[in-house]
Amino acid sequence: MNVNGQPYCTIWIKEENPETVRIIDQRRLPFDFIVEDIDSVDSMAVAIKDMHVRGAGLIGASAGYGMYLAALEASRASNFQLHLQESAEKLLDTRPTAVNLAWAVERQLAAISKESSSEAKIQTAFETATKIADEDADFCRRIGEHGFGLIKGISEKKRGDVVNILTHCNAGWLAFVDYGSATAPIYAAFNAGIDVHVYVDETRPRNQGARLTAWELGQHGVSHTVIADNVGGHLMQHGMVDLVITGTDRTTYTGDVANKIGTYLKALSAKDNDIPFYVALPSSTFDWNTRDGVSEIPIEQRGGDEVKYIDGFIDGEERTALLTPLESNAANYAFDVTPARLITGLVTERGICEPNEESILAMFPERGSSPA
Amino acid sequence: MNVNGQPYCTIWIKEENPETVRIIDQRRLPFDFIVEDIDSVDSMAVAIKDMHVRGAGLIGASAGYGMYLAALEASRASNFQLHLQESAEKLLDTRPTAVNLAWAVERQLAAISKESSSEAKIQTAFETATKIADEDADFCRRIGEHGFGLIKGISEKKRGDVVNILTHCNAGWLAFVDYGSATAPIYAAFNAGIDVHVYVDETRPRNQGARLTAWELGQHGVSHTVIADNVGGHLMQHGMVDLVITGTDRTTYTGDVANKIGTYLKALSAKDNDIPFYVALPSSTFDWNTRDGVSEIPIEQRGGDEVKYIDGFIDGEERTALLTPLESNAANYAFDVTPARLITGLVTERGICEPNEESILAMFPERGSSPA
Repeated sequence: MNVNGQPYCTIWIKEENPETVRIIDQRRLPFDFIVEDIDSVDSMAVAIKDMHVRGAGLIGASAGYGMYLAALEASRASNFQLHLQESAEKLLDTRPTAVNLAWAVERQLAAISKESSSEAKIQTAFETATKIADEDADFCRRIGEHGFGLIKGISEKKRGDVVNILTHCNAGWLAFVDYGSATAPIYAAFNAGIDVHVYVDETRPRNQGARLTAWELGQHGVSHTVIADNVGGHLMQHGMVDLVITGTDRTTYTGDVANKIGTYLKALSAKDNDIPFYVALPSSTFDWNTRDGVSEIPIEQRGGDEVKYIDGFIDGEERTALLTPLESNAANYAFDVTPARLITGLVTERGICEPNEESILAMFPERGSSPA
Repeated sequence: MNVNGQPYCTIWIKEENPETVRIIDQRRLPFDFIVEDIDSVDSMAVAIKDMHVRGAGLIGASAGYGMYLAALEASRASNFQLHLQESAEKLLDTRPTAVNLAWAVERQLAAISKESSSEAKIQTAFETATKIADEDADFCRRIGEHGFGLIKGISEKKRGDVVNILTHCNAGWLAFVDYGSATAPIYAAFNAGIDVHVYVDETRPRNQGARLTAWELGQHGVSHTVIADNVGGHLMQHGMVDLVITGTDRTTYTGDVANKIGTYLKALSAKDNDIPFYVALPSSTFDWNTRDGVSEIPIEQRGGDEVKYIDGFIDGEERTALLTPLESNAANYAFDVTPARLITGLVTERGICEPNEESILAMFPERGSSPA
C-alpha cells in the first residue's frame, strides 16, 4: 500500500544489497516513518522482540528473512549447521507465542537441510523467505477480493453513497506483508473507486488503531475518523456504520474469534443493531483443535503499566505520561473472544464462510470432517 | 468521603471566614489535591466554566453558593437587585446545558426576592445555598442506602466473597456534594465492612474513570482496578463482574438512560452475560418530557482534539500529547443512550424501580399518570 504516494510492503530486500533486509520501524509510527536496514540475524531478533515489526503475518515473514540472514552468516562461520541452529533458537525466543514465527523458522530449517552446499543453502533460504512473504501478501490479496463483494454490495444498495466501515485494532497491511486482513477488502474497494469511510477504534491500551490503522489508511488516501473505543455502539444505533470488519489472532474451527480486547463489545453492538460483522483471516489463523473459544482460549494478561501510562508525541519527541493515580492497580487483558453466534461471516483466502464447523470444514475439506 | 484520611465534601464554607467558599480544583486530580478559595461570584463562574468543579449535583451546589457570594457583593453595591441579576446571568452563561445550574440560580433568585433587607437577603442566600448542597448530599446518601441492599445481597449469596462491581465514568462524590450516585451504594457497602472491589472503566476520551473515580475510591480506601474501556465484556464473560452500576446525565420517564459514551456497550455485555445492570440517579435527573431516549435525546459532539490529544503527568507536570496522525480526523460523541430493555433497575433517593413508565411513575406519583 502507499506511503507518501509510493507503494510499500512491510518487509523487502534492499535493492542495492541483497544481503540486507529492510523493514519499517513501526514503533515510531505515526510520528516518524523510519525504514530500517537489517543485516544480521541478531538485528532481526531485536526487531521482532522489540516490536519494530509486529502482526502475525509480518512476524512470520520477518522470521523467514531472519533465517536467510542466518544462512548468509552460517556460510562464513566455522560450523554452518551449528550457527543456523543457534540463529533459529534466537528467533524462536523473541515472541514465544507467535505461531507464525515457529512455523516460518521450521519451514526454513526443513528447506535448508535439503541442500548440501553453502551456496545452495543460501539460495534456498532466500527463495523460501521470499515465498513465505509472497504467500502472506497473496493470501491477504485474495481476502481482499472476496471481501470486496461485501462492500460493493452495500455501495450498490446505498446507490453509491459512502459505505461506513468500523474496524478495531490494526489488522492492516502493517500487520502482514501487504494489504492486511481486515483492511484488504477496504483497500480493494477504495482502489476500485468505491466511496468508503472507515471508523477507526483507538484500541486502548496500546492504541494500534489510533497509531497504525489511522496512519496506513491516511497514507493510502482512505477517508477515516478515529474514535474512542466507547463510540461504536452509538454510531451503530444511529445508522452510521454499514459494516464491521476486524482481524483475529485465533479462530476456532467452530467460528469463535479471539481478537484484540474490545472486539466482543463491538460484535454485541453490531448484533443489537442488525449490522453485518465480518472477521477476515488467512487460514493459518484457524485453530483446528479448539471447540469452545470463550472457555478454552487462554487470554494473555500484560502489565498494568500499559494502562496506567500512555505514549504520545510532545514537542517533536515521543514521551510517556501517567494517566491514573500512581497507586491505583490496573488490569490489562490483551484479547477477548467473540462467540460465533455474533459473527456474520469469516472472510478467508478461499472465500467467505459462515462461522460454524460445517461451513468452515466445507471450505477446508483437507482438515477432515471432525478435526478435534 | 475521605481524602488523605480526612472526610471531605466537594464544596463547603471556609471555617475561618464564612464569606469564602472552598472547592477542590478537580482539573488537577489525580496528580495534585488542591483546595481553592472562592470569594467572588466571578471566581465561582470561572470555576464552573473551566471545570474546576463538574458533575450535575456539584454544579448546582456551586451555583447556589455562587448566588450567596453574589448577595454578599450586592449588599456592598449601589443597586442590590441589579448586581444580583447580573451575577445570576454570569453563572447561567458558564455551562448553558447544565439543568441543575439554572435550577439552583432560579431557586436562589426566588428565595432572595422574598426578603427586603440586605441582611435578610444574605442570610436567606446562605441558607438556600446550604440547603441545595445538603439536599444533594442527602439524596445521594439515600441512593446509597437503597443500593446497599443490592451489594449486600450479592455478598451474602457469595458467602462473603468479594463483590466485583464495574462502573463507567465518574458518578462519584466528586460529581456531587458527597457520596455520589453510582458510588453511593459502593461506599455504603464498604463502610459497612462488605468486601467490595471496583473495576473502573478508564472512560476515554476524557478519562474521568482513570483520573477521578480511581482517585476517589483510592483515597477512601476502596479496592479498585483501572481497566481500558475495552475490557469489561471479557470480565463479564468470565464471571469477574457481579454487578454494574453507572450514573446518568438524563433518564427518560420510560427508563432510557443517557450517560457517558460507552455505557451502552457495557449494558449489552451485562445483558449477554446475565449480570445485573443498575443506574443510580437523584430524581432531578429524570426527563419527564422524553419518551424515546435513543431517537429523541440530542447527543453532544465535542471537539476531535479531545480524542487526538491526551493529558497526562510527566516529570511532575501535566502535559498534552498527540496520539494519532496529525492529519487524521476524530469524532467525539460525549454520550450514548442505553435502552431501558438492557437495564435491570434505577436506584433513586426514594428506592429502586424498574426502568419503565409504570414503575417510575409509581415511585413519583406527583408527576401524574402520563407526563408527556
